[in-house]
Amino acid sequence: MLRTHTCGELRPEHIGQTVTLCGWVQLTRDKGGILWIDLRDRYGLTQLALEEGVESDEVRAVARELGREFVISVTGKVAERYSKNLHIPTGEIEIRVEQLEVLNPAKLPPFLIQDDTDGGDDLRMKYRYLDLRRNPVRRNLELRHRVAQATRRFLDGQDFIEVETPVLIKSTPEGARDFVVPSRMNPGEFYALPQSPQTFKQLLMVAGFDRYFQIVKCFRDEDLRADRQPEFTQIDCEMAFVEQEDILNVFEGLIRYLFKEVKQMELTEVPRMTYAEAMRRFGNDKPDVRFGMELTDLTATAQGQGFPVFDSAELVLGINAHNCAPYTRKQIDELTEWVKRPQIGATGLVYARVEADGTVKSSVDKFYSQEELQKWREALLGNPGDLLLLLAGPATRTRKAASELRLEMGRRLGLRDPNTFAPLWVVDFPLLEFLEEEGRYFAMHHPFTSPKPEDLALLDNPATIGQARANAYDLVINGVEIGGGSIRIHDRTVQARMFELLGFSPEEAQAQFGFLLDAFEYGAPPHGGLAFGFDRLCSLFGGSDSIRDFIAFPKNNSGRDVMIDSPSPIADAQLKELSIATAVVGR
Amino acid sequence: MLRTHTCGELRPEHIGQTVTLCGWVQLTRDKGGILWIDLRDRYGLTQLALEEGVESDEVRAVARELGREFVISVTGKVAERYSKNLHIPTGEIEIRVEQLEVLNPAKLPPFLIQDDTDGGDDLRMKYRYLDLRRNPVRRNLELRHRVAQATRRFLDGQDFIEVETPVLIKSTPEGARDFVVPSRMNPGEFYALPQSPQTFKQLLMVAGFDRYFQIVKCFRDEDLRADRQPEFTQIDCEMAFVEQEDILNVFEGLIRYLFKEVKQMELTEVPRMTYAEAMRRFGNDKPDVRFGMELTDLTATAQGQGFPVFDSAELVLGINAHNCAPYTRKQIDELTEWVKRPQIGATGLVYARVEADGTVKSSVDKFYSQEELQKWREALLGNPGDLLLLLAGPATRTRKAASELRLEMGRRLGLRDPNTFAPLWVVDFPLLEFLEEEGRYFAMHHPFTSPKPEDLALLDNPATIGQARANAYDLVINGVEIGGGSIRIHDRTVQARMFELLGFSPEEAQAQFGFLLDAFEYGAPPHGGLAFGFDRLCSLFGGSDSIRDFIAFPKNNSGRDVMIDSPSPIADAQLKELSIATAVVGR
Repeated sequence: MLRTHTCGELRPEHIGQTVTLCGWVQLTRDKGGILWIDLRDRYGLTQLALEEGVESDEVRAVARELGREFVISVTGKVAERYSKNLHIPTGEIEIRVEQLEVLNPAKLPPFLIQDDTDGGDDLRMKYRYLDLRRNPVRRNLELRHRVAQATRRFLDGQDFIEVETPVLIKSTPEGARDFVVPSRMNPGEFYALPQSPQTFKQLLMVAGFDRYFQIVKCFRDEDLRADRQPEFTQIDCEMAFVEQEDILNVFEGLIRYLFKEVKQMELTEVPRMTYAEAMRRFGNDKPDVRFGMELTDLTATAQGQGFPVFDSAELVLGINAHNCAPYTRKQIDELTEWVKRPQIGATGLVYARVEADGTVKSSVDKFYSQEELQKWREALLGNPGDLLLLLAGPATRTRKAASELRLEMGRRLGLRDPNTFAPLWVVDFPLLEFLEEEGRYFAMHHPFTSPKPEDLALLDNPATIGQARANAYDLVINGVEIGGGSIRIHDRTVQARMFELLGFSPEEAQAQFGFLLDAFEYGAPPHGGLAFGFDRLCSLFGGSDSIRDFIAFPKNNSGRDVMIDSPSPIADAQLKELSIATAVVGR
Repeated sequence: MLRTHTCGELRPEHIGQTVTLCGWVQLTRDKGGILWIDLRDRYGLTQLALEEGVESDEVRAVARELGREFVISVTGKVAERYSKNLHIPTGEIEIRVEQLEVLNPAKLPPFLIQDDTDGGDDLRMKYRYLDLRRNPVRRNLELRHRVAQATRRFLDGQDFIEVETPVLIKSTPEGARDFVVPSRMNPGEFYALPQSPQTFKQLLMVAGFDRYFQIVKCFRDEDLRADRQPEFTQIDCEMAFVEQEDILNVFEGLIRYLFKEVKQMELTEVPRMTYAEAMRRFGNDKPDVRFGMELTDLTATAQGQGFPVFDSAELVLGINAHNCAPYTRKQIDELTEWVKRPQIGATGLVYARVEADGTVKSSVDKFYSQEELQKWREALLGNPGDLLLLLAGPATRTRKAASELRLEMGRRLGLRDPNTFAPLWVVDFPLLEFLEEEGRYFAMHHPFTSPKPEDLALLDNPATIGQARANAYDLVINGVEIGGGSIRIHDRTVQARMFELLGFSPEEAQAQFGFLLDAFEYGAPPHGGLAFGFDRLCSLFGGSDSIRDFIAFPKNNSGRDVMIDSPSPIADAQLKELSIATAVVGR
């Protein structure tokens, strides 16, 4: 080794020892008579000292020329510091430098290698290898490592086998867009990169593997947003001979283990809530249950008093913003503009203050008597000082807007503490959803999800198809969907019926998923599973909204890696070998 | 859970308990009065019993109709067996079946689900999910899981961080052929799948990650052989502030740990051998050192006696096949044909028997006196009963043929026991090799490998370039290259010189590897690493020559997954979105 110790391990008990450290120059402070250098590596910072008349002039001359981020090796004795820094673990000692070697000089980095850097996003992505030197970024990836190791340890302990499924698979039309890979050996044919190992893990259940998991890269060629990447990582799991409740229990165990190992937190039991209840109480299938402020249906209460906006609405919803009665007119106007933004979609906001004496004063007093307003107050459990906020309009849109308003008010009121974690299983999702623009049903989870046995009959009547529920579930933490899964179909007939409902002809179903339908005829066990979004799980543990902060080399919103400058054109000879040609419009 | 126990866990202490098991029908034996069923799951086999007059007639009727591989659930009492089978852990008990439910029937499988199956390779690959039900195949993947978990445990304990590097990267011309992925969002541009995370792990060292590893899929679009797959898995590692010896020690530690954890074997120290010595003694840079039979240079000894084949040869090599003097003429003829096969490449074989009285009798007695033949015997340490085998011709080809002959004789003599493990570090590989057909030097390891500092001057003289050695090393076990790596270049100037030697113009080097060259200017630490072939490592532990046996869903020699029928054509709409067209010659 080029060093005897790391920059994070020397303590007072090492005083007097001669040590060799290697690392990067974080900072040089030249006070004339004495020169201090902060030497940094992954493990910490250690102070180096070179004093006039004590350390050699030649070594001090070399040290004077060091720039930020130079890579050096130093040898010297560990000494007690005159002025200790008890904020860092090595703050009681320093190294009196006897030898100093520059292992590699460095140009001045384009941004500061510090916790709070002056580098913008683009610059930090272009020089990601420098960005990764910063403590917060490195700590994110260390956390990711710990979460991965702990996940494997837990699942291995529960008899799960990690099996690597193939990356070069087959393109399927259902679901998101595939990335494809031209095959040189099979001209005109393509592999696809997996959107998930779904069919393979089901085949592993047919193969009797009983309990499978994998921490695995998946790929979706979708237009990107801040929390989406073209390649992302899943904790992918499947179990045989289980029912939904078994899966929830096993993976509740995993989540509790991870909280304990990674966050040193004991989670209480994870509550379950049906999709229908979540939509009713929170207007959202991934409710943030760190706080209340639930949606209250005021349609019946508020209609029939001559207020046209409410009378013509399909749904009137209210929330109670506790202690917000003092909101100024300006604040309320700003909130009204906020709910009218296209991404929220409300047409307006009605408010009502509960005064100190219990009377209610609303923005629509000319339509509502105090008696009527007191009914609102009762329904919303309003106390003096509360602000009641009402939205109205078409049901789906109003529910969504009310849910967003609730989250926004929760944020403004400080009810969404990132250090509080409120996990929740949402269960009993609808099996299918009808997409108007496509004119057909789509699987809400995926085409392999089992209907609830008691709802099977609903599928036989076109009028009730949409009401059928699935044995499908999501794990939601703090309003973020961390994972989801389902009990799968293991019967060829039911699976074929499902493909039919999704608009596949029998021939199409056979061409795309014949291997799975065939497999179901050779003894498929009842099975189910789920997948966690690993990037999101890590960002949740790290207290961040952005999965990019937890990916070593992420891509930008155009799917580009700006550091390596990819994607990029390839040579004509490569295209020819692959039997493809580029056909770029306008070239 | 649909079961209370697995099929592998019931023992005499469970007798009297009512249990529920699920699994596959392995075998039904109907003796009229009593019917036995072997029920199988991943964990084992349990015998079910249904006796006339004891178990119910209805249940017995259902049981009679069961076919092989039906998936069933049974409930009953654990009972002591009349006739115990002590070969299996559950062999002392059976289940007296009270309830039996068919969870899924099964068509008759196309081959027997048994350790020795009647299914050919193609059939087993098409129905891989049935092949995976067989114990030997499942055990291979269980072993793979254990090796992966143990690897992570060891490296995590040594402060290595597992970092996921991207799968969608940039195509580079050096090395093997890339798989590429057209970018929809960047028309006319392509990602490439990584042949290894080489540049990313070096950037992680520049980023100060200090110790990195990853068990990671890699991709090479090469023509396939039995031990090659288009996608394969590496244990990929890198360390900073180390020298070659440190890396050898750390990963020798890993290998010893794996042998202990997975094979319950204590490895002795792993010896080191230079490339030059390996080539001289074994004719091979990955020698199987489980046995001796080393190559002996007989050029000087055997020339000058008028035998034109030897006199005109660049190299004459001999090996001593102990106790093979009794080989018949027919056996020797067969061996001669064997060495003349194109893949071995010798033009003939000279042999000499050491007789009981110590005299030597050769196939070329008319050119060699007994005195001369005794010189051969001395050089080859021949004892009575030994058979001396000599090959001659151009040096490289003769060395290769002699190496193959040595391995073949080792195999025939039973010297290559798969349960004996002889690991070896081969070090000091040449830096470059000259490929006549390309008319230029290529990196023997890869372009990022550091020359030995003492050999740097050799690179300045065209006559000595080929003699420069690299800080590169391979781990070889039983003649198989399990892993390899090198100390990397961390200096921009040396890296630029290396690209120049490999025929890159400065512009080409910048276009392809500019990000790495740039990174080297911002404080790159000395670093090095290695990668193990994970599939091969698992097949070695499993005592198999074929990596395919240790991959859940392998591809065939045409790169096809015959189970899912991939690769396959994709829709025109997909091609259009990706701005590519297929250009298949002859269509």
